[in-house]
Amino acid sequence: MSYRIGSGVDFHQLAEGRELWIGGIKVPHTKGAVGHSDADVLLHAICDALLGALALGDIGVHFPDTDATYKGIDSKILLKKTVELIQKEGYKVVNIDSTLCLQAPKIKPYVPQMQEAIASIVGITIRDVSIKATTTEQMGFVGREEGLMAYASALLVDNRI
Amino acid sequence: MSYRIGSGVDFHQLAEGRELWIGGIKVPHTKGAVGHSDADVLLHAICDALLGALALGDIGVHFPDTDATYKGIDSKILLKKTVELIQKEGYKVVNIDSTLCLQAPKIKPYVPQMQEAIASIVGITIRDVSIKATTTEQMGFVGREEGLMAYASALLVDNRI
Amino acid sequence: MSYRIGSGVDFHQLAEGRELWIGGIKVPHTKGAVGHSDADVLLHAICDALLGALALGDIGVHFPDTDATYKGIDSKILLKKTVELIQKEGYKVVNIDSTLCLQAPKIKPYVPQMQEAIASIVGITIRDVSIKATTTEQMGFVGREEGLMAYASALLVDNRI
Repeated sequence: MSYRIGSGVDFHQLAEGRELWIGGIKVPHTKGAVGHSDADVLLHAICDALLGALALGDIGVHFPDTDATYKGIDSKILLKKTVELIQKEGYKVVNIDSTLCLQAPKIKPYVPQMQEAIASIVGITIRDVSIKATTTEQMGFVGREEGLMAYASALLVDNRI
Repeated sequence: MSYRIGSGVDFHQLAEGRELWIGGIKVPHTKGAVGHSDADVLLHAICDALLGALALGDIGVHFPDTDATYKGIDSKILLKKTVELIQKEGYKVVNIDSTLCLQAPKIKPYVPQMQEAIASIVGITIRDVSIKATTTEQMGFVGREEGLMAYASALLVDNRI
Repeated sequence: MSYRIGSGVDFHQLAEGRELWIGGIKVPHTKGAVGHSDADVLLHAICDALLGALALGDIGVHFPDTDATYKGIDSKILLKKTVELIQKEGYKVVNIDSTLCLQAPKIKPYVPQMQEAIASIVGITIRDVSIKATTTEQMGFVGREEGLMAYASALLVDNRI
């Protein structure tokens, strides 16, 4: 078995008048994430972890925020394209672990839906997609609710051997 | 061999009049970490990495800070419970790597004791528990000594095959 | 096959009048990174990920910033020494993934050169060294261009079996 690891991190500002998309799900909140796409910080971190495991560049290389194609795009489409790149290289995802850092709202009630959304795109089970959450204890830009961030790790395995 | 990876991150504020527990050890310092439990940022990040590898939720799910049971609790107990969950799933820990981000004090003298504490609970050797430390070069909330943070990564392997 | 994982994170301040070394390459910019060595945040995070995978301590233990030997040193030398430590333990690097967090400049044009520099020292191909980059969307100390940070993950495998 031939393994590879990848890791990703992503950041988005929070602002009123935007929708808050996290893990492919629209989360009800007074603020939303700012970005060229739907600004889904968790899916972006996961895309980067998958791309990084195979040194395929990063999300900014594949889906540049200067490209009108990706304006307001659903990040689940970006994840689907990323998974296709992984498969084309002959690899499959073993498991994904992630941590969302945000002060509010509580995302725990939405985690199962997020797991479903991600698992169905990646072609794994919900037991292979972990989504954890933590505040930063009121510290820094996340603690001041100026923004949110997400970390993701991925383990891949060569599917050809 | 069937592997899984997990990663965790944790944050705690620092305040006078609190004890500073890191890696299961009480570190002498003018400030301590604030939290519902003993606020051991390193053990919490490690618990989250272990839980995340098997998509078992996060430390907030298993040991909620709204539960009086965990008020002031020694986080070594939380780590022990986490390891039991891992074992119940049929997995064992291959290695843990971690990084503590704090401006002061120097924790290097305490690292061997922390490794011993963690290794004995997890059931691995001290060569399988890495604890690294860095300042943030005076930047951000860690640099201003408002708080500290820790990252942890874990590699698990299926113990049944 | 016996695997191990490691992860590293590093931080450096940015200041005028310093050179900006990232990934072994001098990047033209109005500011440079502050540190005892050449302050190469990416190589330092990678060194820590490699050391961490085998619980060999951290970069501060091996190359202390209080040691005049390392004053202004090219961090490629530190990476080389780190790789030698890994090899001495009987391990080799499978792959490295990394993310550079900085607000400016765009580092994409320099990534292939950085990959070459790192791959040649570590003894892997450029397809085994991933360098991703992101801003923090103007947030925090990275967003204010006070500093930059880097994350690195590494997968190692026992070379003796």
